[in-house]
Amino acid sequence: MIENVVLIGAGNLATQLALAMHENGTRVKQVYSRTIQSARELAGKLKCEYTNDLSKLITEADIYLIAVKDSAIQEILENLYLDCDKLIVHTAGGVPMNVLDGFTLNYGVFYPLQTFSKNRKISFSSIPICIEANHPSNLIALQEFAGRLSDSVHQISSDERKTLHLAAVFTNNFVNHFYTIGAEILQDKKLNFDLLKPLINETAAKIGKMDPVEAQTGPAKRNDQPTINAQLKMLHDRPEFQKIYSFVTESIFQAHKKHNHDLL
Amino acid sequence: MIENVVLIGAGNLATQLALAMHENGTRVKQVYSRTIQSARELAGKLKCEYTNDLSKLITEADIYLIAVKDSAIQEILENLYLDCDKLIVHTAGGVPMNVLDGFTLNYGVFYPLQTFSKNRKISFSSIPICIEANHPSNLIALQEFAGRLSDSVHQISSDERKTLHLAAVFTNNFVNHFYTIGAEILQDKKLNFDLLKPLINETAAKIGKMDPVEAQTGPAKRNDQPTINAQLKMLHDRPEFQKIYSFVTESIFQAHKKHNHDLL
Repeated sequence: MIENVVLIGAGNLATQLALAMHENGTRVKQVYSRTIQSARELAGKLKCEYTNDLSKLITEADIYLIAVKDSAIQEILENLYLDCDKLIVHTAGGVPMNVLDGFTLNYGVFYPLQTFSKNRKISFSSIPICIEANHPSNLIALQEFAGRLSDSVHQISSDERKTLHLAAVFTNNFVNHFYTIGAEILQDKKLNFDLLKPLINETAAKIGKMDPVEAQTGPAKRNDQPTINAQLKMLHDRPEFQKIYSFVTESIFQAHKKHNHDLL
Repeated sequence: MIENVVLIGAGNLATQLALAMHENGTRVKQVYSRTIQSARELAGKLKCEYTNDLSKLITEADIYLIAVKDSAIQEILENLYLDCDKLIVHTAGGVPMNVLDGFTLNYGVFYPLQTFSKNRKISFSSIPICIEANHPSNLIALQEFAGRLSDSVHQISSDERKTLHLAAVFTNNFVNHFYTIGAEILQDKKLNFDLLKPLINETAAKIGKMDPVEAQTGPAKRNDQPTINAQLKMLHDRPEFQKIYSFVTESIFQAHKKHNHDLL
């Protein structure tokens, strides 16, 4: 059973994960960050050790959780000095499990499919945690470990995780960018972004109950050219928004033409 | 005070509006729809009269609420046979108030900034209702009328409403299309869309507390070219998604370059 954790990373995900483990009684023994202040800050919340030196990681932990940005994983691995049977796990959506191969005999992935901010506390209990391991016994250990944090634990392959990560880019990163565009459009006319928030919430809540293709509304779906043209014209001083508007409108129209055709 | 309503329309918005009015004791006296079945169905829920003939609208109502799609408003107006002092109001985001000019002496707009479905009941109390009127006395009447449904009533000009509608297209229609794309990407690999729902909800909930530009994460913001290229490659059999991915990624990158520059 996984009891003692060394956490490698002190960013958004590492912070939220550490706080959630701390709450459920899983012991984070040490926090590593390249930046000593970040390590100290998070360790302070957990009342544990911290370091910015990978050669000083404590050796008696049950798991080494690498929660750093994708591009930093390789460098971390190359600088670990651990016994070759230590369980090492990364938390990245887009990175295959086999990057860990050759660094230890026991490894896996622990990918919480959620967006994290350092200062926004989040309840883990309904977050899907996607796990993968190189060996059934590691999978069982990860299953139990993840199950302490969430009721939604899924065994997901590296290929499947890559697909989930891509879909998450559309439904989180790209969606958030459209919130930003909405906010800017209002700001240009001194209108309050709060006016859009109930709409934004309902748009998300709706697909809890409805297929998103069924939930689609608006001028693009109806191919309402007068409205589309008027809105494009309103964006004349924002050519980058205009371009996105055209592409997404066309994509919605095509998707619904196809959807309606499929229903025939 | 507005007590008796004639509702012109029986679609998503008309239905939800009627049910909300019915609940707060505002009397919907009659429902009109071009399609008699739709009129009958909604009138059945409200226990009121219905018609599909504009010449048969009852004449003793305090307000005639036009809740039909934008492109149908003009035709409705041209076929109304009402006294010239009747209060007529439309509910469209993208249509200016002055389309009502010449059809009556008393008119205005009542635009609830929300997405509606026929079969998804919605609480009106926090929906921003944007009102506009041709005369202060009509504005006061609409203010009181809207205040019975919502705690968030705002006097908004036609120009401002047009801007809100445009921002709503980005944050509702376009966002929902990205939910659809996410669902399709998962479906292609037989993965369950439910896995994305907590992420989608948190993405929306987050901007209740954070500026969306601050909430942005992901490969586009970091300009993480290896991930961006890998994801574009995954979309090789979906050229239309690939195109959108490229454009939105570029737009996020540009927006954050600008944002970071503005912060210097």
